[in-house]
Amino acid sequence: MKQRDVMVREVGLRDGLQIHPTFMPTDRKIAWIEAEAAAGVPEIEVTSYVPPKLIPQFADAEEVTRRALSVPGLTVSALIPNSKGAGRGFALGVHKLNFVMSVSRTHNLKNVRREREESVADFRRIVESARARPEGGRPIVVGGLSTALGCSYEGRVPVADVVRYALQLAEAGADEIVVADTVGYADPAQVRTVFKAVMAEIGALPVAAHFHDTRGTGLANVGAALECGVRRFDASLAGLGGCPFAPGATGNIVMDDLCFMLDSMGLRTGVDLEQLLRVRSIVRESLPDIAMQGALARAGLPRNYVRAEERCAA
Amino acid sequence: MKQRDVMVREVGLRDGLQIHPTFMPTDRKIAWIEAEAAAGVPEIEVTSYVPPKLIPQFADAEEVTRRALSVPGLTVSALIPNSKGAGRGFALGVHKLNFVMSVSRTHNLKNVRREREESVADFRRIVESARARPEGGRPIVVGGLSTALGCSYEGRVPVADVVRYALQLAEAGADEIVVADTVGYADPAQVRTVFKAVMAEIGALPVAAHFHDTRGTGLANVGAALECGVRRFDASLAGLGGCPFAPGATGNIVMDDLCFMLDSMGLRTGVDLEQLLRVRSIVRESLPDIAMQGALARAGLPRNYVRAEERCAA
Repeated sequence: MKQRDVMVREVGLRDGLQIHPTFMPTDRKIAWIEAEAAAGVPEIEVTSYVPPKLIPQFADAEEVTRRALSVPGLTVSALIPNSKGAGRGFALGVHKLNFVMSVSRTHNLKNVRREREESVADFRRIVESARARPEGGRPIVVGGLSTALGCSYEGRVPVADVVRYALQLAEAGADEIVVADTVGYADPAQVRTVFKAVMAEIGALPVAAHFHDTRGTGLANVGAALECGVRRFDASLAGLGGCPFAPGATGNIVMDDLCFMLDSMGLRTGVDLEQLLRVRSIVRESLPDIAMQGALARAGLPRNYVRAEERCAA
Repeated sequence: MKQRDVMVREVGLRDGLQIHPTFMPTDRKIAWIEAEAAAGVPEIEVTSYVPPKLIPQFADAEEVTRRALSVPGLTVSALIPNSKGAGRGFALGVHKLNFVMSVSRTHNLKNVRREREESVADFRRIVESARARPEGGRPIVVGGLSTALGCSYEGRVPVADVVRYALQLAEAGADEIVVADTVGYADPAQVRTVFKAVMAEIGALPVAAHFHDTRGTGLANVGAALECGVRRFDASLAGLGGCPFAPGATGNIVMDDLCFMLDSMGLRTGVDLEQLLRVRSIVRESLPDIAMQGALARAGLPRNYVRAEERCAA
């Protein structure tokens, strides 16, 4: 078993691909999942259980999940917007369900077409259904809060609202809370304020951070979250993703750069950096028109670089 | 007089242009300086007093300095590698001389062709010459430490070496110390270690940070330096620059993104973000082949964004 100080989760197959117009063939998705798991990434959000009519990219959600579940040692998670999605996840035996609702009312109405209170109530039902399942078939249920650091419709989002919904999801029985800067508005000072407030309120429940690098502050926000004690981070290989409302904007923070920064700080991720960089070619060959980011991929590792794992062992 | 919580210094005309093969016409340099000063940037490193044979880009150093000195309110600084460069600065009446030496022995030998002790001795002479000048014509003398967070020849650089040379430059009479991650190796943990150690040793002398974004950690390093109390940062518009040893690598941290992050954190820089973004077109039109970075330029300001200045005034 690998020693990990920080858990990174790949979300490129979901957050990165969902707005991309070209369908990535299922075999290529699986190749990507297998290669990234082999590079040491412990968890991958492999798809989203939404109607294929809404997002054709996820028409193969069932097959992707089934095949990902056969990758040794990998935690397979999927996004769900509601009970219906959860049902699909239960049936497939996925390890982890990432429920998502928005802290901003407007964004929640646009994204999942209901009031935030309805989302919370639905989440409560999902947790109950999960708990009613037999021990071995009980997925981990994650409560995710989108637009927790800003909303492209409403602008700034009150910290009190983030704390309120985090607490409601925690009380409903979430195994983990994800606080997400969906549109890349956050700065390190705000990250400290919001994460400290949420973590003070929900106690020992693990909190994960989901940052976008839309305005260049992504890794700075990781730095601030680390100081608050956050040890779980979402990212996408090559920073895949973007925002339909900001052409050319980068997507999630770049997994390769995140792993480098953490490793350089002496925090073990379990990820082999060179091997991770090689996974980029799978994406490049499969989707030649997708925008790929990444500073480490351009510059390479520092001279005489010593991995965190080796430094810890020394 | 503008209220500023953080002082940003534009170094693109020096660090950004020095490796670029195309000469930027003097008039365009001046247009850039004037526009960026008008956007509120308080200090610009406008050139380098090195032999034009070595870096033809700075063949117009005298004219650029003279014309920059006529820009109202702007602090005009220039890089100097030695006493000879300092002499040119004295003659021109430049406001600030940024002396540079490398903490790494190999880098100092390659870059300024002498031992580190010779650099320190030369710096001492420069400070003495500056102090011997009449009050009005006495420039601020800055002691800069290159490769303080890593060296492309030697790899990791011992913290004790950084502290030793920082102390020697301070004792020699520096008005400010610049700690530079010349090759973009730093991570936030290392930044905290190095800056805390330097600041503990040199007392109240101001310390500035000079980061490159070569591996994506630039703004995260700014976040870490801010926590240590650093309030002076170098950056280049559009992240101009790069490294001759890392093709495609980005250069300095992006001034536009730095100013956005600081402003978003509630730290006043005196810079008008929209006006700063418009300065990019001067660079784009003058040097169509230069690589320009910048997340804010792609994504724009967050919705309903309120500037730090207005928040402070409210």
